[in-house]
Amino acid sequence: MTNSAPALEPVLDTLDRSVDASVDRLFALLRIRSISTDPAYADECRAAAQWLADDLASIGFDASVRDTKGHPMVVAHHEGSSDDAPHVLFYGHYDVQPVDPLELWDDDPFDPKVKTVDGTKVISARGASDDKGQLMTFVEACRAYKAVHGALPCRVTILFEGEEESGSPSLKPFLEAHADELKADVALVCDTSMWNAETPAISGSLRGLTGDEITVRAADRDLHSGHFGGAAANPLHILSAILAAMHDETGRVTIPHFYDGVEEVPAQQLESWKALGMTDEAFLGEIGLKHPSGERGRSVLELTWARPTAEVNGMIGGYTGEGFKTVIPATASAKVSFRLVAGQDPQAIRDNFRAFVRERVPADCSVAFAEHGASPALVLSADAPAVLAAKAALSDEWPKPAAVIGMGGSIPIVGDFKAMLGMDSLLVGFALSDDRIHSPNEKYNLASFTKGQRSWARILDALASK
Amino acid sequence: MTNSAPALEPVLDTLDRSVDASVDRLFALLRIRSISTDPAYADECRAAAQWLADDLASIGFDASVRDTKGHPMVVAHHEGSSDDAPHVLFYGHYDVQPVDPLELWDDDPFDPKVKTVDGTKVISARGASDDKGQLMTFVEACRAYKAVHGALPCRVTILFEGEEESGSPSLKPFLEAHADELKADVALVCDTSMWNAETPAISGSLRGLTGDEITVRAADRDLHSGHFGGAAANPLHILSAILAAMHDETGRVTIPHFYDGVEEVPAQQLESWKALGMTDEAFLGEIGLKHPSGERGRSVLELTWARPTAEVNGMIGGYTGEGFKTVIPATASAKVSFRLVAGQDPQAIRDNFRAFVRERVPADCSVAFAEHGASPALVLSADAPAVLAAKAALSDEWPKPAAVIGMGGSIPIVGDFKAMLGMDSLLVGFALSDDRIHSPNEKYNLASFTKGQRSWARILDALASK
Repeated sequence: MTNSAPALEPVLDTLDRSVDASVDRLFALLRIRSISTDPAYADECRAAAQWLADDLASIGFDASVRDTKGHPMVVAHHEGSSDDAPHVLFYGHYDVQPVDPLELWDDDPFDPKVKTVDGTKVISARGASDDKGQLMTFVEACRAYKAVHGALPCRVTILFEGEEESGSPSLKPFLEAHADELKADVALVCDTSMWNAETPAISGSLRGLTGDEITVRAADRDLHSGHFGGAAANPLHILSAILAAMHDETGRVTIPHFYDGVEEVPAQQLESWKALGMTDEAFLGEIGLKHPSGERGRSVLELTWARPTAEVNGMIGGYTGEGFKTVIPATASAKVSFRLVAGQDPQAIRDNFRAFVRERVPADCSVAFAEHGASPALVLSADAPAVLAAKAALSDEWPKPAAVIGMGGSIPIVGDFKAMLGMDSLLVGFALSDDRIHSPNEKYNLASFTKGQRSWARILDALASK
Repeated sequence: MTNSAPALEPVLDTLDRSVDASVDRLFALLRIRSISTDPAYADECRAAAQWLADDLASIGFDASVRDTKGHPMVVAHHEGSSDDAPHVLFYGHYDVQPVDPLELWDDDPFDPKVKTVDGTKVISARGASDDKGQLMTFVEACRAYKAVHGALPCRVTILFEGEEESGSPSLKPFLEAHADELKADVALVCDTSMWNAETPAISGSLRGLTGDEITVRAADRDLHSGHFGGAAANPLHILSAILAAMHDETGRVTIPHFYDGVEEVPAQQLESWKALGMTDEAFLGEIGLKHPSGERGRSVLELTWARPTAEVNGMIGGYTGEGFKTVIPATASAKVSFRLVAGQDPQAIRDNFRAFVRERVPADCSVAFAEHGASPALVLSADAPAVLAAKAALSDEWPKPAAVIGMGGSIPIVGDFKAMLGMDSLLVGFALSDDRIHSPNEKYNLASFTKGQRSWARILDALASK
């Protein structure tokens, strides 16, 4: 390992000495009511963007507020300490969720405080965790590097958006228009959680998604089940049979070619997940269940992080109001989604699903489909240099070694970075599952904030040193 | 055959000579806007009841208008020509359906006319077929008997209700309160159709019904399919699998003991249905289908008249609005009904169904049920004396022999007569499938009206002669 990067230790010391100042700065940002979904707060959103641009400019970034059709972006650039330093794009969002119901908050959500709750110091405010506290961990790491060395170990581009909580309508057009400016070697996304308060986590994979809607039509009108029952096709029967046929008795998806390209999780990975100590009982107990329902013989973590699914998300047909109507409906429909893992092609999954459905619709009935999105799984190889660097850096900082975990869902920005800028994302965040994001009394542990800053300093160092 | 009844032929002659007068009387009744569902027409309902009571009194019935909590009943009694004459209860209803959308009517629905449509004379008005025209066929037959002989061949009780089109809320209490007064040897119900314009029909069987609702619950809340998909039970999957398992690949219901007590339709009966010439293609073609979906190898008439079914009438779960939500719902529910035939116990069917469902719900999920009615099938044996009498009488009147057919649905009044008065019902009516009952431009063929009168004269004669 050649390490031409600026020394790390004095940066960490500086961070430790400036906790109060960094909390003050975060408080200033938290006081800005940047609720993106409510047009009444548009000025506050712009104020948050301006505050960030000013703050970044004050530590030497070439920072600007960029208008969009919605709330503005903040874009900032800083060179690295050497020409061959890696180039990272850091992403965060300055907008926050609405605060209602306000009466459920213990304090004013926009008057941040450091409080001690159950022996733990927390920063309480709307956005403390999602995402102002998280994004400021990175800014503070940069500030300390600049204070100590007058330089950053990596070339850094920062992108803060103000519409993450309202669907990011301006993001794709902005990425498209500024692809050259924003493209980096790797994206750093700080909007995720740790495994637990002692164990940092890198989200190494996100499942993809194919969404589809089926409508089966039988007769040309709703029928009276007395007159026609027993002779006329019932689309609810046809649809139930199709949906029931999607899984065999072991929980495996039966659609032909569904598992084409899907590889087993390496034994070492499975071992490391096992070491996290999450039992099926604990995972399912939280939601009132006991037994994993998916492919038999796999843990809940493997099932939700690394295995594809076929899931019915909604179904309707016939009479569903109070009481009873003996109708045979003309149509029945279902929304079905497939969570995808590496190796699966979202469009092939849709095609194979539709063929599977068509095969099961009687000749005198018909089926119509509606498309609801398709995105591939995103996987950062466990031995990709950025992952190895971040893993080592995080393991140095926290009591327990970093876990490379999966995410069962998707994060649109990660897919956009991959699809539009050809860039992988390293997902590292310091939130905890009890942070109550999107809910009253949102908080961010003070340790998440301070050790998060130190973590980013370490990660920048490790990335520059690899 | 001993025939002590008054001679039939002069009665038929009298009916033929009084067509114009009988049409005038029907018109008077049709002009009364006795729409039972709209409280604005309550007075008109009472006027219709009074008109009928007056008319029956004018031909010697002991007739009265009886108040209920809703629209009144008409009850009338007349002795038979001899002490051993059979006692029949004739049922009809004087209320009619609403007429909207009014703009789709060619004429005022309450200004009856005799018109010629496609070469056929029809009486056009709301209620012409359902049920004022039908019930007056019986009243005219009685009038003619009285005119010729001063007597009726059977003892006759008449019950006209005014709430048939609004669910008959007063009927059961009225039957209960007046059971002794209303109980007869057999009920004659004139609210059904002929097989076709040339072929009269006796509805010899009605299927019963057990209705049930299932709600499957898995997790204790709706889940995000990204976080939990693949590990958490999905109630839509469980419910689909249960519903799909209710039928095997031959269309047979798989619920244990479902067919206990169900007998095959006698070959002779099947032959007579076959002779009606209804093909699967014709029956299903009307509703846009081609292939019978029920038990394989049986005709549509057997399937809908004489075979039990398991039918999903409604199903809902998860997100069913516009677009897509990747939710795993906490619950999913379905309304299921079973059409029953002779030999099936409605409560046993419910019990066996619920056991079948419970067996298929995973141990950590739960299921709740809601009851939606249970009524047994009603069957009049094809060689019951009343059926044989009516069959012979109808076959003498019409171009083609009478058919004893089944009805796939149920008629509540028939179940009530059986359960509350221990009385079988002979269902004979002269409506046709193109009468547009409940729709604009309702009509009743003039031949239905005139030959219907003659049919009742013949049936009364046949019943008295048996």
